[in-house]
Amino acid sequence: MSVSVPNEQRSAYYEQIASQRMAPLWESLHNLVPKQPKPQAQAAIWKYAQVRDLVMQAGAVISAEEAIRRVLVLENPGLPGKSSMTPNLYAGLQLILPGEIAPSHRHTQSALRFIVEGRGAWTAVNGERTTMHPGDFIITPSWTWHDHGNPSVEEGGEPVVWLDGLDIPLVGTLDAGFAENYPEATQPVMRPEGDSFARFGHNMVPVRHRVTDPTSPVFSYPYARSREALDTLYRNGELDAWDGVKLRYVNPATGGWPMPTMATFMQYLPPGFQGKTYRSTDSTVYCVVEGRGTAHIGDAVFSFEQHDVFVVPSWQPVQLAASSESVLFSYSDRPVLAALNLLREERI
Amino acid sequence: MSVSVPNEQRSAYYEQIASQRMAPLWESLHNLVPKQPKPQAQAAIWKYAQVRDLVMQAGAVISAEEAIRRVLVLENPGLPGKSSMTPNLYAGLQLILPGEIAPSHRHTQSALRFIVEGRGAWTAVNGERTTMHPGDFIITPSWTWHDHGNPSVEEGGEPVVWLDGLDIPLVGTLDAGFAENYPEATQPVMRPEGDSFARFGHNMVPVRHRVTDPTSPVFSYPYARSREALDTLYRNGELDAWDGVKLRYVNPATGGWPMPTMATFMQYLPPGFQGKTYRSTDSTVYCVVEGRGTAHIGDAVFSFEQHDVFVVPSWQPVQLAASSESVLFSYSDRPVLAALNLLREERI
Amino acid sequence: MSVSVPNEQRSAYYEQIASQRMAPLWESLHNLVPKQPKPQAQAAIWKYAQVRDLVMQAGAVISAEEAIRRVLVLENPGLPGKSSMTPNLYAGLQLILPGEIAPSHRHTQSALRFIVEGRGAWTAVNGERTTMHPGDFIITPSWTWHDHGNPSVEEGGEPVVWLDGLDIPLVGTLDAGFAENYPEATQPVMRPEGDSFARFGHNMVPVRHRVTDPTSPVFSYPYARSREALDTLYRNGELDAWDGVKLRYVNPATGGWPMPTMATFMQYLPPGFQGKTYRSTDSTVYCVVEGRGTAHIGDAVFSFEQHDVFVVPSWQPVQLAASSESVLFSYSDRPVLAALNLLREERI
Amino acid sequence: MSVSVPNEQRSAYYEQIASQRMAPLWESLHNLVPKQPKPQAQAAIWKYAQVRDLVMQAGAVISAEEAIRRVLVLENPGLPGKSSMTPNLYAGLQLILPGEIAPSHRHTQSALRFIVEGRGAWTAVNGERTTMHPGDFIITPSWTWHDHGNPSVEEGGEPVVWLDGLDIPLVGTLDAGFAENYPEATQPVMRPEGDSFARFGHNMVPVRHRVTDPTSPVFSYPYARSREALDTLYRNGELDAWDGVKLRYVNPATGGWPMPTMATFMQYLPPGFQGKTYRSTDSTVYCVVEGRGTAHIGDAVFSFEQHDVFVVPSWQPVQLAASSESVLFSYSDRPVLAALNLLREERI
Repeated sequence: MSVSVPNEQRSAYYEQIASQRMAPLWESLHNLVPKQPKPQAQAAIWKYAQVRDLVMQAGAVISAEEAIRRVLVLENPGLPGKSSMTPNLYAGLQLILPGEIAPSHRHTQSALRFIVEGRGAWTAVNGERTTMHPGDFIITPSWTWHDHGNPSVEEGGEPVVWLDGLDIPLVGTLDAGFAENYPEATQPVMRPEGDSFARFGHNMVPVRHRVTDPTSPVFSYPYARSREALDTLYRNGELDAWDGVKLRYVNPATGGWPMPTMATFMQYLPPGFQGKTYRSTDSTVYCVVEGRGTAHIGDAVFSFEQHDVFVVPSWQPVQLAASSESVLFSYSDRPVLAALNLLREERI
Repeated sequence: MSVSVPNEQRSAYYEQIASQRMAPLWESLHNLVPKQPKPQAQAAIWKYAQVRDLVMQAGAVISAEEAIRRVLVLENPGLPGKSSMTPNLYAGLQLILPGEIAPSHRHTQSALRFIVEGRGAWTAVNGERTTMHPGDFIITPSWTWHDHGNPSVEEGGEPVVWLDGLDIPLVGTLDAGFAENYPEATQPVMRPEGDSFARFGHNMVPVRHRVTDPTSPVFSYPYARSREALDTLYRNGELDAWDGVKLRYVNPATGGWPMPTMATFMQYLPPGFQGKTYRSTDSTVYCVVEGRGTAHIGDAVFSFEQHDVFVVPSWQPVQLAASSESVLFSYSDRPVLAALNLLREERI
Repeated sequence: MSVSVPNEQRSAYYEQIASQRMAPLWESLHNLVPKQPKPQAQAAIWKYAQVRDLVMQAGAVISAEEAIRRVLVLENPGLPGKSSMTPNLYAGLQLILPGEIAPSHRHTQSALRFIVEGRGAWTAVNGERTTMHPGDFIITPSWTWHDHGNPSVEEGGEPVVWLDGLDIPLVGTLDAGFAENYPEATQPVMRPEGDSFARFGHNMVPVRHRVTDPTSPVFSYPYARSREALDTLYRNGELDAWDGVKLRYVNPATGGWPMPTMATFMQYLPPGFQGKTYRSTDSTVYCVVEGRGTAHIGDAVFSFEQHDVFVVPSWQPVQLAASSESVLFSYSDRPVLAALNLLREERI
Repeated sequence: MSVSVPNEQRSAYYEQIASQRMAPLWESLHNLVPKQPKPQAQAAIWKYAQVRDLVMQAGAVISAEEAIRRVLVLENPGLPGKSSMTPNLYAGLQLILPGEIAPSHRHTQSALRFIVEGRGAWTAVNGERTTMHPGDFIITPSWTWHDHGNPSVEEGGEPVVWLDGLDIPLVGTLDAGFAENYPEATQPVMRPEGDSFARFGHNMVPVRHRVTDPTSPVFSYPYARSREALDTLYRNGELDAWDGVKLRYVNPATGGWPMPTMATFMQYLPPGFQGKTYRSTDSTVYCVVEGRGTAHIGDAVFSFEQHDVFVVPSWQPVQLAASSESVLFSYSDRPVLAALNLLREERI
């Protein structure tokens, strides 16, 4: 049943169908339906020791107010010009100086803030301000007003840097981005700090609470508690050959992911830990909270230290080792892969 | 279209069909399908001041080991001989003396323990022991081995009394009860105290945890944390005209009820609180943790004090008032009503 | 640690606590927490050949209108005086004569109608009437107005008998029954027959439909289709050693049970089928649609024929055999057991 | 708090951070976080009368076997070179001639086939072949072996054309594509045609079926039934001012979408229908099954006739009108938007 057709004839046919905005699938099938993922994103690391000065200099280049958000985007070298860390995820280092305000707005993109250094700045969501401390994981849910600020030097303010994680590329691909500015620089404070945590953080929820939003109503997960949980489990003998001790953050009102598009994790690696190889179809951004060690990602090897940020693209084998007691925060697009039944993982 | 039939003829017919194990629906329809619930269970209160001595005397009547569980069942006066507090729920006061063991067994009935007085006794579930303190809410999931114990007097043991809440009547009605004894008096301790709380209690869960059981993997909810949450919310201005400040306990791995058959709640009533009237189709057992006040339930009025236990049957209007700062724990069969789409409630 | 106490002393103590509405758990623990289910309900059969005349005579004893529902309740001999077939379920044979109306009302009890004999009567739910044919399975959802009627003899009406299955005992135990009468004998007809089936019956649903009720919006499942499905599967070689060919009805808008409290099934047994033994914690009522055979239930053996009704209590081993090609409809309280995590089954 | 910095200084800073793979968010924020979606995809139509000959000529250009899949990809003019109809979705016209086989493979991409013209070809999934008829909607679930074939001319085969809809771009963006070839051209036939429909198509499912896959086990939805449902509803008076009569296909085992990444719809527009304006964040591909009419999409107006294919990008206002009785099939990425809480719609 073979058809023997000269190449020129095929080319002529291809031109003809192109005029009707059609193309021959058989010429691109292998690329479109690959044997396994071939991500354009690359494994990469940002050494905080190298970029910290540049982050701090941003404070002299533009004000938070003018910038709206004074962030240095970490751009994956395999995705140039796309302001993307992975196909779905964005990462950036945001700086807020004492006395500054990053004005209030809202957008359908979900955001997480992972505090890198400095303390005392705040983020406001739903009328409640949360004070930042290194290692805290803070959520800005989709389509909620949010603003950030920092007390003046006189009030004890100091420069604060955090890692922003958003689903900007995903929402862009989906053509589902909406945004609005709040009429004032800051939203009014309606509730004391800690109110949402009191409502939802203690394995209890208000008796008449109805879940209408998939995002966690606990929008601050303090490092003190996360660290204590990891310590306890390690002392109790928990140690996975791939992960060390690894917990995922949950929305306590559903047991699900804290946000519908991003998973977040915190893991502990004891000194000398040599993890086995793992891969999965979610793409993961790591931020080193404490310690030092090595990450083998595909063919690359990165030494990591405190505050470094590195990225593992889809299906790249990754192996983590710690030379000193280490704690890693990470976030990924796992909820997207899981919801669409496209999550695949392998422990090698 | 009326059919005029003498009563004698109907009676003869009824006898005839009775011989075939059949009965005329039309004679009982109004009772079987009532306009609104007419519970046989009655509102009632057990004053701890009146029953405490009897509870303590149980220690001289039978040992924990002989009794298996040394419990005085609180029996609803409307359900005599049924060992039931409500149609679905059981309540009892359990005493364990220093040096005693209540031997290990398991059953499909779910159980909760709400600690009334004394501290230092433990309950063991899934290889982990939990030390009891007044106000703690502790779970024994369906079909898990569990045993209770108390250190000797030399080790600092003291008599401990807790309120047992189980779904014994429900499981009985459903003909779904299974039970087994463990070959030893106590199960082996496999994990240090606090392990499950470290895993699940901090709004994080182990990364590879899969939910296979609807019961909460956090099986101890300490009073210190519940009380702190209530205090914070009250300070923040939360006060519902019906409930005061009321939280429900959740399974943090699902956001659902802590057990598939029983809901649990903790609520705070400020001094002088005069709650509005509420009713619902779940039946609720209350235990007073702190304070004193009044409960109007249907036509009855009960004064309550610390450690008292009272019950509100289905659809009975209830109104709570506090003369001093009060904290009430409660449990009900709400998950059953909700799962079967039979929960109805009214705030009057 | 044994406590040696004379029996008289215990008795005195028991009296004392009884005055406080308390009872010693240790005297009843074995009954309350049994090793395995000991249902009071008994296996039993109603031979249609024996009861048919009595059912028809009911038409002369009372009118449908006076009776509201002219039903002979099938009462489990182990549950005398309870109008119950199983602890949760009710079963009755309803007769409606040509020209009669069973007036409109609603109640929180869910109902199913399984048509035994006669055709042409109708049931109305949500403004739509459905014509009955033998073998059809029809739903009256909780809290929906419903009335039944039969054309006059002149219009071709004939006596119609169906099996009513309701969760009356369950809703009674739960104290969750509410009921209301409609102001007229019949509700207005708002939609042509078949409308709900067109909306939901073809593996499609209206684009803006939101599931707000767990009950199936397809309230008629015609026998012609169920029978065809069973036939096809049997021809295709499907035959389970326990079940023959067995399907469960689903709510196509959720994939779940057709009603939140009752599961329904239809199964085909080829001539000569000798099923293996099965048991489970749901209690099941069978109605023979076609054929004849034998049911071993626990120690009892029943020969069954067309239109017979028999019941299998919880955890009773059951074994089905068919001497001629047989079709069995059945309903059970499986959704209740499943929702409460109390469903256990065994294929022996 | 403004910072006055010469532009040159900013440029120098931008170069410096670029060397560290960082970029200033404030220069791109408006594009990354737009006020509302600005899709690159464009509204477009493929007139079947214009492309049919080219589709048929493909049969002379390459064999099905050599091509693996002989498909002309419909490429959105706003997404050149991407083989994409929308950011997430692929569309193509596949031709299979009498006597041909499109060999068996599997991939993580989900696929739908909507039959345009010709009948008698088959698709095989999970060991069962389904014969195609115009208007049928057929599913190939993610990661299931599938092959297509057509009887020889002698056996009555005729050329068959269908519209392929896949989530190829989405799976590509997610880096989640895996594929494998089957060792033989066709998979073995294990079950007669209609088996899966008998199991799942009649609002019943096999009693022991457990849902482990979100994709519908009914993989053929025949046009005859869909058309009948639409007809009935229209006769019954159903007519939405935006949609006409519109149904969505469901997975009867879950009530959810037929595939985790693609929704499918069928709608009826009566002659003279003038629909109101609607928009939503899912992107939709339409295929005209019957009739003729007009689609206003944003600023564009397209006349449509039978077999035409047109596309509506995210958030583009769309208005449908029918000059003759029309039936439209459509598919979109709605499940993706819905799962990620990014679905927004507006009826204007």
